[in-house]
Amino acid sequence: MSEKVALVGSGLIGQAWAIVFARAGREVRLYDSKPGAVETAIERIGARLRDLERMELIDSAESVLRRVAKVRSLEAALEAASYVQESVPEDSALKHQVFAALDRLAPATTILASSSSGIPGSRFLDLPGRHRCLVAHPANPPYLLPLVELVPTPWTAEETVKRAWDVMVAVGQVPIRLKAEIEGFVMNRLQIAVINEAMSLVARGIADPEDIDKMMANSLGLRWSFMGPFETMDLNAPKGFLDYATRYANTFREVGADLKVTERWTEAAIKTVEAARRRVLPAERVLERHGWRDRRLMALARHKAQAAKDIGP
Amino acid sequence: MSEKVALVGSGLIGQAWAIVFARAGREVRLYDSKPGAVETAIERIGARLRDLERMELIDSAESVLRRVAKVRSLEAALEAASYVQESVPEDSALKHQVFAALDRLAPATTILASSSSGIPGSRFLDLPGRHRCLVAHPANPPYLLPLVELVPTPWTAEETVKRAWDVMVAVGQVPIRLKAEIEGFVMNRLQIAVINEAMSLVARGIADPEDIDKMMANSLGLRWSFMGPFETMDLNAPKGFLDYATRYANTFREVGADLKVTERWTEAAIKTVEAARRRVLPAERVLERHGWRDRRLMALARHKAQAAKDIGP
Repeated sequence: MSEKVALVGSGLIGQAWAIVFARAGREVRLYDSKPGAVETAIERIGARLRDLERMELIDSAESVLRRVAKVRSLEAALEAASYVQESVPEDSALKHQVFAALDRLAPATTILASSSSGIPGSRFLDLPGRHRCLVAHPANPPYLLPLVELVPTPWTAEETVKRAWDVMVAVGQVPIRLKAEIEGFVMNRLQIAVINEAMSLVARGIADPEDIDKMMANSLGLRWSFMGPFETMDLNAPKGFLDYATRYANTFREVGADLKVTERWTEAAIKTVEAARRRVLPAERVLERHGWRDRRLMALARHKAQAAKDIGP
Repeated sequence: MSEKVALVGSGLIGQAWAIVFARAGREVRLYDSKPGAVETAIERIGARLRDLERMELIDSAESVLRRVAKVRSLEAALEAASYVQESVPEDSALKHQVFAALDRLAPATTILASSSSGIPGSRFLDLPGRHRCLVAHPANPPYLLPLVELVPTPWTAEETVKRAWDVMVAVGQVPIRLKAEIEGFVMNRLQIAVINEAMSLVARGIADPEDIDKMMANSLGLRWSFMGPFETMDLNAPKGFLDYATRYANTFREVGADLKVTERWTEAAIKTVEAARRRVLPAERVLERHGWRDRRLMALARHKAQAAKDIGP
């Protein structure tokens, strides 16, 4: 009998987790406190699975979808579940309330994981069963971007982290483990460093938003799609990272001191970016453009797997 | 008769520019003040071209290489050149000296462009012919990462920017134009924002370097390889960027205020990163690993062209 996973919250992230777990053969029970939400979610999961089937990333959308069951109560979701993934809105009071119920109702050995995208778990996980709670923050969508940040609170048991790690690896995700809690975790901190500096360049009239996007997709982003910033630096000096650090330490200090990532977004810069985006994509076509983005990510996932095989990981 | 391009400086960047221009049918004259440097450079260009041929990104390495000529004097390099790309080391006094000579010797209508990777041109381009000088900063290597930052100084003529833009488009690069000079330009500012925050996460003991690299290559970098940060945000809220900004402005402010991108790199963090990299790649194999990186970038370039055709740009 395959392992049972409970998903609490059926928005975009909950739906995406359903695909991750069901694709890997897990029995998924999807719960949402909002009436009708799960029905809508299951329809959308089906549509995404059919895309994955068309892109040859799964064999059969129907057989995966069959493993996603809707349930009408938290009790039904949790019954015999070995792992729970919460994906309710990013609000620590709400998450605290949900986890209090999960901790009360779930079997004693069930792992309780939160999709919190930046709020440290210790702000909402101080519960009787806090040793079995942690954050497991996915990239979006997790069935195409495999990274998961495991962030234990100071109370999370080592065994809990280890089991959550094994669950993620078993379903094909790529977990990393943070050694301490921090606002925004790693992924969103680095993303926000880029975004905030990019906004300040727009606010200061240095570059147009479309040119910043062009820059990313034709330079930095190409490298970063298969190697991170440290590996990139390591390969950018003849003797590796230390050599690189010695050569460029001054540049990093000087340019670093001039960065504006802590500045507030200006209204004018927000308007400039919105106007630039609306010139290329009307607001009413944003949702339809998700299909393009996801198909591109699917094709890229297939490419990466092939390139790792042909050229080396 | 095809256009003549003069390249001054035959290190990694000069070699890569030779590939860009010769691949696009230009007659390239490569000059370096260091005796023997051009000979070595031409050998390396040949090796890179053979890789490109093997990866089916060019038809014939030999026919491209035939368009790269070594010259023994600056005068010979500049004779009848319509465009000059300087790629000497990143040192404004040296660049000033080189440009003074270029400006004296080049035909009056020749464009003089610098590969400066972050030093604003106005620090070394105040010359009699400063109207025809500008920065054209490539990503590395430019024959695989097509982005070029065109950065005019306050004295650069509009006509010069326009002609440099046309040259870049004609040889298959993707130019963007900065509207004002700034330390580090756009590409390195955003790169340094990521790198400095990543270093601070290592210094503070939040995450291991290898996990930060894993994060990038399994989440953010995948998206950024075909769409920039603004397009990403635009597609991450149902009604587009403004909707996104409204939802997440608080998060960007809070996490932004906590970023440490202006901090100096600590010796301990540098050692931690170097040790992590040396565990996976001995220093003496760094250069050989360049081949892997470039083959991956070549395969990615081919994939992107195909995906843009099949799925849409």
